Amino acid sequence: MIGLTNYAGVMESLMNSAEEKQPSSPLTNSWAKKQESSKSQKPNGVGGFVLVHAGAGYHSESKAKEYKHVCKRACQRAVDQLKAGALAVEAVAAALVELEDSPFTNAGMGSNLNLSGEIECDASIMDGKSLHFGAVGALSGIRNPVMVANRLLSEAQKGKLSAGRIPPCFLVGRGAHDWAVSHGIPPCPSDKMATKFSLSAYKRNKRKMELAEKMDTGHNQTKKRRQSSENGNGSGCLDTVGAVVVDLEGNVAAAVSSGGLAMKHPGRVGQAAHYGCGCWAENACNMNSYSTAVSTSGCGEHLIRTMLARECSAAMQSEDAHQALLEAMQNKFISSPILASEDRVLGGVIVLRCCRCVEAQPSQNFQGILVEFLWSHTTESMCVGYMSAQDSKAKAQEVPPACLYGRPVMILANRQEAEENRL
Amino acid sequence: MIGLTNYAGVMESLMNSAEEKQPSSPLTNSWAKKQESSKSQKPNGVGGFVLVHAGAGYHSESKAKEYKHVCKRACQRAVDQLKAGALAVEAVAAALVELEDSPFTNAGMGSNLNLSGEIECDASIMDGKSLHFGAVGALSGIRNPVMVANRLLSEAQKGKLSAGRIPPCFLVGRGAHDWAVSHGIPPCPSDKMATKFSLSAYKRNKRKMELAEKMDTGHNQTKKRRQSSENGNGSGCLDTVGAVVVDLEGNVAAAVSSGGLAMKHPGRVGQAAHYGCGCWAENACNMNSYSTAVSTSGCGEHLIRTMLARECSAAMQSEDAHQALLEAMQNKFISSPILASEDRVLGGVIVLRCCRCVEAQPSQNFQGILVEFLWSHTTESMCVGYMSAQDSKAKAQEVPPACLYGRPVMILANRQEAEENRL
Repeated sequence: MIGLTNYAGVMESLMNSAEEKQPSSPLTNSWAKKQESSKSQKPNGVGGFVLVHAGAGYHSESKAKEYKHVCKRACQRAVDQLKAGALAVEAVAAALVELEDSPFTNAGMGSNLNLSGEIECDASIMDGKSLHFGAVGALSGIRNPVMVANRLLSEAQKGKLSAGRIPPCFLVGRGAHDWAVSHGIPPCPSDKMATKFSLSAYKRNKRKMELAEKMDTGHNQTKKRRQSSENGNGSGCLDTVGAVVVDLEGNVAAAVSSGGLAMKHPGRVGQAAHYGCGCWAENACNMNSYSTAVSTSGCGEHLIRTMLARECSAAMQSEDAHQALLEAMQNKFISSPILASEDRVLGGVIVLRCCRCVEAQPSQNFQGILVEFLWSHTTESMCVGYMSAQDSKAKAQEVPPACLYGRPVMILANRQEAEENRL
Repeated sequence: MIGLTNYAGVMESLMNSAEEKQPSSPLTNSWAKKQESSKSQKPNGVGGFVLVHAGAGYHSESKAKEYKHVCKRACQRAVDQLKAGALAVEAVAAALVELEDSPFTNAGMGSNLNLSGEIECDASIMDGKSLHFGAVGALSGIRNPVMVANRLLSEAQKGKLSAGRIPPCFLVGRGAHDWAVSHGIPPCPSDKMATKFSLSAYKRNKRKMELAEKMDTGHNQTKKRRQSSENGNGSGCLDTVGAVVVDLEGNVAAAVSSGGLAMKHPGRVGQAAHYGCGCWAENACNMNSYSTAVSTSGCGEHLIRTMLARECSAAMQSEDAHQALLEAMQNKFISSPILASEDRVLGGVIVLRCCRCVEAQPSQNFQGILVEFLWSHTTESMCVGYMSAQDSKAKAQEVPPACLYGRPVMILANRQEAEENRL
């Protein structure tokens, strides 16, 4: 387990190196770009920010390169949506579709195979504006599980079904598949979702399992379990994907999608389908000054039992976001009494927080949304990408254990419009 | 929606009537009984307390009578386990099996049928000592879903599986069924789980739905939804069951089981399978003075989105348990911004909280566990039962909207033994 001292130490050096790599301040860039757009009287559709991840785990060099590419593409997809006037929840879904479509990520296409050699996916999405949530678990035969989660969310927002029935927010298995198809989401044959990579990983894992079980023969159950736990750590199989978005109006949304642990038991549902565990999004309100959005990655069982997404979101109401995330990861995850019996606690989070911010020069008729973004993980690495709607291209990086803090980004809006939107 | 003033007002009168009905103090009774048992040098297996519910919702007179009977039987089952030296988690599972086996409750046998006329059950269990959790969702063909949840919990406590795989805490659908059978839990043909009552309710609901949809023909979608929501409220279908237990050592456990909403979509999973939503149990620790256990009932979607079990558990660390539960139900449920768009917020909870309590006469070499038990609901009625291991028989009552507070019960233990158990 990674201790706090070590963890904080690594963080400092990484923050410095991240600063070295980005000599120009995103805050200044965004500011300048926004001023230009305001002059041309088209303030709509140019604001917003997206942060995505392609999982916390172990990434080989070749995979890391692909992950950076897909993170950038996912950011671009979300930004395209934001520029077209989409709300945060639509933009975050668009980012997830791109991440799921990559054959390299463990979500949608190319997901890990379970014990029976089948693909069963989990995904969820939360809208910080309506606080509605949609999730699917152990879903087979649908290329983009996040689309089903998103559709559940939007259907629930329409109100009750016939005869006063309450619409579902969480569907699993065959029922989830049939619901998706009946709502116009096309089925995809399961064999088309497996890739050369996922199939060869399945064969390799199966051999490894058989070998481990053979080696354990003759030992008693307890000893067997203990030995087995030393044979592997599963850290290569944690590459769940996710994204958090804030739109021009200041609404936040979060989503997450996963093929789950490699060689999981059929029917196993991980944190990606679990409320409060895989993602969380909550607009600012009377009680909370900040809007927050969180998406997690890592070992589903650890993330479920610690409700990491919601814990990190709650922590983000503290003044110092960086310190709050560090403490939340330490106290609510790494040292949580809930995970006291675990030898390694595996997880990562990406976090956005935003607040309304009135510009120092009121004559310019602007107010803005100050966006802060952070990520943290206990795993060997984590791949993240981020992009402001004012940026011409996305940035992506693969990072070793750390709590990294992106520089604050300012999204500007026309004051009158912002007030109409009750920012 | 029930306002706080009204709610508190009803509560007072109910508390008075509850007091009138039980002129003898459970505290005094338990105390006397425990002293006797200690004199005979058999302090083990005589302590503990159980509180069960047969759901918050609408109960017809005939059903209420059956519910009271099954609540009493469930209490007796748990107490029998406690007397035989079982831990809280085993006793709570035993209570749930009794509740599931009743053809009148909406759990296990006699569960609500879904849209396709099938039974799909949710259940979960949490052990306050280990903080482990097990859950099943949309599980068909198993008579006692709580047994599968309990087995998942106990298997996870054994550590990792072969090749370092992390054991699941949450299984759904066919995978959950197959896992159960492979772990020795016998399958039960689905048609044997349906009862005359559940089948006739299904036919009635189907006709109601068809009629509602027919009436809506010709209206636009929005209007249709609004009208439909007035046609029914589903409040007759919320009779999820659950229990909370404290054992002689002061360990707490909680469990919940449900057939889900009537006419739900296949694959729909409700709060009974959802971590933090259906049940919560947490022994006292450095951070928490009280051990707490909570089990919920009501509309699954409302209970999931507000994480009611965990919220109520957290609230129970306040000094005044009664006031804390009242506030948690009001602020975290009835008035929660998460449920702002809902016209009726339907739910109920049963709560136990315990703390170590040193006897005023230390010469007697005793220390005890002070148990407080409460329940609260926004639905028309809720049926609860409770029993101390020192009682000769269980008490059960059906109660209208209220926040009721049982009188504190003292469970006594031999000080030396209690210290060995690190109470």
